[in-house]
Amino acid sequence: MNAEKIPDIIVGRLPIYLRALQHMSEKDMKTTSSQELGELVGISAAQIRKDISQFGEFGKQGTGYSISFLIDKLREILNVNRIWDVAIVGAGDMGHALARYPGFSNRGFRVVMIFDNDASKIGLKVGEYTIEDAGKMVERIRAARLKMAMLTVPAAAAQSVTDKLVQAGVKAILNYAPVSINAPENVHIQYIDPSTHLQRMTYYLD
Amino acid sequence: MNAEKIPDIIVGRLPIYLRALQHMSEKDMKTTSSQELGELVGISAAQIRKDISQFGEFGKQGTGYSISFLIDKLREILNVNRIWDVAIVGAGDMGHALARYPGFSNRGFRVVMIFDNDASKIGLKVGEYTIEDAGKMVERIRAARLKMAMLTVPAAAAQSVTDKLVQAGVKAILNYAPVSINAPENVHIQYIDPSTHLQRMTYYLD
Repeated sequence: MNAEKIPDIIVGRLPIYLRALQHMSEKDMKTTSSQELGELVGISAAQIRKDISQFGEFGKQGTGYSISFLIDKLREILNVNRIWDVAIVGAGDMGHALARYPGFSNRGFRVVMIFDNDASKIGLKVGEYTIEDAGKMVERIRAARLKMAMLTVPAAAAQSVTDKLVQAGVKAILNYAPVSINAPENVHIQYIDPSTHLQRMTYYLD
Repeated sequence: MNAEKIPDIIVGRLPIYLRALQHMSEKDMKTTSSQELGELVGISAAQIRKDISQFGEFGKQGTGYSISFLIDKLREILNVNRIWDVAIVGAGDMGHALARYPGFSNRGFRVVMIFDNDASKIGLKVGEYTIEDAGKMVERIRAARLKMAMLTVPAAAAQSVTDKLVQAGVKAILNYAPVSINAPENVHIQYIDPSTHLQRMTYYLD
């Protein structure tokens, strides 16, 4: 555990490095350089060297970084050298997509529950999961001691569901609803939305 | 147009500022500070001031930034003071979720087409769209002069579909498939995946 030692802005870049390194590894690459990694993720080589050097010595000068070693180290730092159980709240299109998403298992996550408040959905299967009654969400999440949830409810419900997740002991929420949510300081919130990523590219288009 | 003048790493932060500012605006806030904005987005106040100062004078010392003025300016810089038409490729769960996503219109985007190669899906409606034959994708996208696409096909199909999108003239691809894709240098690629965002938070959990 490196509790709070790494500046948050650097922590934010580490999952991006990790994803790129895992892509490289899938292509059977063994080593990389800060230049190569930088081109893949759109961050300067100097910044990458600086970020990575914070955690010790990762490669010999001139021979590049060992991809597998760097992956292991980043997984350790990011606390994903274990599996985190995650709940999905909202069994709409996005909830279904996440319940069937194949990109969790090798990244440190496992969906274990999916909730909805629509009586016509409760009891239905989504992939391997059965949609559970959102009315029982707080006790279910608390009993399972889940710390993470993905919020895929309509915007209007996002805050009230967030409050319940906090009450249930959730400490990290990934919000898909296109609306801001509030939670106590010790609860981490991340927003994920396609528009932000699209806007990242329109700057370069004409 | 600010073609290529702003460093890419800063461009990457601007949509995040814009989203936070739009959230503030929805809450009827009129002004903000680099401290307040920084806390919302997890970036230091100093960094925000530095980023924003690149584009001119946005607020008087001590009175904070005008939120609406900053929103307008960022929309202009990011080239989203207009509407970009976007195609969705892959009418699975994620494609459906995106076709019905309510967070595009006020961010500069409009979905105009959705494609799939599954004959049992072609012709079906998703929200207001009719799923079109992926076999006609290149000519359709080219005829409509679309520059942007969201890729929600299975990982195994991601590269071949990317090649077709490039052929059709697409210059920006948002990839939902949990796999890396390759495109010519003048085509922009962004990856969007829940695991990266979840890993952004596990660092702080124990």
